[in-house]
Amino acid sequence: MQLIENSELSDGSGAGLARRFASGLLGALGNPPVRFLLWNAESVTTSSEAPLMTLRIADRLTLFRLLIDPDMQFGEAFTDGRIECVEGDLVRGLEATFRSAAAVSKLQWLTERWARARLLLRRNTLSGSRHNVNAHYDLGNDFYRLWLDPSMAYTCAYFAAETMTLHEAQIAKMDHVCRKLRLRPGEEVIEAGCGWGGFALHMAERYGVKVRAFNISAEQIAYARDSAARAGLGGRVEFIHDDYRNISGSADVFASIGMLEHVGVENYEALGHLVRRSLRPGGRGLIHTIGRDAPQLLHRWMERYIFPGAIAPSLGQMAALFESTGLSVLDVENLRLHYARTAGCWRSAFEQARATVAQMFDERFVRMWRLYLCGTQAAFLAGDLQLFQVLFAPARSNDIPRTRDYMYRDSAPA
Amino acid sequence: MQLIENSELSDGSGAGLARRFASGLLGALGNPPVRFLLWNAESVTTSSEAPLMTLRIADRLTLFRLLIDPDMQFGEAFTDGRIECVEGDLVRGLEATFRSAAAVSKLQWLTERWARARLLLRRNTLSGSRHNVNAHYDLGNDFYRLWLDPSMAYTCAYFAAETMTLHEAQIAKMDHVCRKLRLRPGEEVIEAGCGWGGFALHMAERYGVKVRAFNISAEQIAYARDSAARAGLGGRVEFIHDDYRNISGSADVFASIGMLEHVGVENYEALGHLVRRSLRPGGRGLIHTIGRDAPQLLHRWMERYIFPGAIAPSLGQMAALFESTGLSVLDVENLRLHYARTAGCWRSAFEQARATVAQMFDERFVRMWRLYLCGTQAAFLAGDLQLFQVLFAPARSNDIPRTRDYMYRDSAPA
Repeated sequence: MQLIENSELSDGSGAGLARRFASGLLGALGNPPVRFLLWNAESVTTSSEAPLMTLRIADRLTLFRLLIDPDMQFGEAFTDGRIECVEGDLVRGLEATFRSAAAVSKLQWLTERWARARLLLRRNTLSGSRHNVNAHYDLGNDFYRLWLDPSMAYTCAYFAAETMTLHEAQIAKMDHVCRKLRLRPGEEVIEAGCGWGGFALHMAERYGVKVRAFNISAEQIAYARDSAARAGLGGRVEFIHDDYRNISGSADVFASIGMLEHVGVENYEALGHLVRRSLRPGGRGLIHTIGRDAPQLLHRWMERYIFPGAIAPSLGQMAALFESTGLSVLDVENLRLHYARTAGCWRSAFEQARATVAQMFDERFVRMWRLYLCGTQAAFLAGDLQLFQVLFAPARSNDIPRTRDYMYRDSAPA
Repeated sequence: MQLIENSELSDGSGAGLARRFASGLLGALGNPPVRFLLWNAESVTTSSEAPLMTLRIADRLTLFRLLIDPDMQFGEAFTDGRIECVEGDLVRGLEATFRSAAAVSKLQWLTERWARARLLLRRNTLSGSRHNVNAHYDLGNDFYRLWLDPSMAYTCAYFAAETMTLHEAQIAKMDHVCRKLRLRPGEEVIEAGCGWGGFALHMAERYGVKVRAFNISAEQIAYARDSAARAGLGGRVEFIHDDYRNISGSADVFASIGMLEHVGVENYEALGHLVRRSLRPGGRGLIHTIGRDAPQLLHRWMERYIFPGAIAPSLGQMAALFESTGLSVLDVENLRLHYARTAGCWRSAFEQARATVAQMFDERFVRMWRLYLCGTQAAFLAGDLQLFQVLFAPARSNDIPRTRDYMYRDSAPA
């Protein structure tokens, strides 16, 4: 970085310097079609394409911080309102920036070092996991109800048909998973990380199975138990407020939708052994998780403010779960663009409810959450994030379907 | 191992010892339902189940060698005729032995050490690959024509319907791969490791694409060129007698069926970079390969006599191909039991042609090949081997289908 004379930063003569800094930042990001509108009304862009978004930067200090640590400072400044998207589309703008930044990735090395150091502070030990998970999922059921679909599914939906609503697509996701798992009436299922319980109830109600569902979020478990009682499914679904590491007993099926992100790569092998021990002969399992094309830590701002301790694994990293634990991978499906659309639906609903959210929390929270939802949609659109469904069985089990036709046959569930 | 007195091995008083050795061997293999019939007509089994096969062991030395190094010596003795399957079913017997041995795996460590040492001698360098591949595939087209289907596909078929013949299932496999790859008329395809060219011709003829197909087996390339000329497809399919490492230029689609086994794990990353460089925007790729649930070298006898230098990778090992090379995995399908059935079909045809094979080579060759085909079928049935089809695209490409319905829709190819 060039040396900066004090006078240039502290008085009006710094206008040329600010422009140079802003250009330098865009250059380091691979020159995305993004426009900066500086505090002095100067407009800066380094791309020849029409800008997809215009970001107003409130002051000199914000720009300076962005230069030092863009990953973290962009989110901080956006949350504070020191950066605003005043024109264009935040999702498209972020997607383009993620794509162009990945092509240059000059900042990658430093970014990863910082992220690794932080992650050590948020290890997913038994108590660490509880702390990390509660930070996000115990924000209040009322809050999530504002923008999730009625099933309260907070994971990637499956838009089996182009015209599906979010709620239809969440139900389609549950059915897609149930069909892959070939659930049969009377079978027993262990679900690890059950959220608000919608999937457990769906399996019990529509497929006639018995479910033991685990979660360490107190608010979610309370909600799920309440739903089970109201649906008269209390006898078929047991919601257990405990860590997946304390799962005992056996089952025909193991299912986990959106928990692996919170497990930590160092715990995958132990999870794999637990799953293998749990599965009876002829058993099946499915893990649905946000993933990566290659090992990479979560975006630092996201990990700090939204998902403490979380990591999205590559398939290579997930191998630790299957390869030394006696499990055989039957099928992997990447549903990345379904998550982009899911996040888009959440974002629309969130914006419609933003006045209520602001009353529940404050405007800072609204802005932070807006960036999280837009950033998530953009990351899936840009291919920074993937969504893997991995279907598996105990190694050497020949109780496996000949083809995958059964997943796509039009068969109404039991 | 116990100390052996010379007198016990060299004269008739060794009968009790031979029985103990035979029992010890079965114990080390996890007591499979297998019966040994010794040279002195003694019958030995350590399982309470009815034996699936009876193996006649011709002499004391053969038993002794089996004890020292069963993986290698079983194949040697079987080839020599010193071990024969005189009752029951060799495939079922081997499958049961693979399963029981895996459960105890006392020999695993030693086996792996020997295998690793051997593999160093057969590295897949440019010249090493040519030597390794020619050893197997240049046995003569006339030989393979005796027991492969008319398309000369020497890879796992896809029994899309239960009633398919091998030939129908090989065509179904080609169509399954073409459908996954969404081939469009006029597109260009690079095929790496094209065997006798059946798949390249199928793509060109049925899907209207142009194919450049690579292979380092001289006999196969000659056969393929001849087939192309006879089919009048010479203008649309170019068969190139060269190593995959020398592939240049670009294409819309990269396909490789049954080559990765010969590439060597140490070369996966370079192959991945080559594939990524080759693919145009909107491109797709598919790799079809024998695999493993967990990293493990090829069975030593198989590696020595049948597939020098070959290795079947786990998905974790295959990650090297995709994760640092800018490719995104869209779909993985495990077709293990289809390979068991394919090998079963080959075995039947081979046995029908065995008199001809004996004339071409000799009886030793017939026995060796019989063990290879039976062992392959058994290994897929036992879950020692897997068959992975991995579909991928350049990372960040959004030109990907929303669901996998398109793979299962009944659509006649162009």
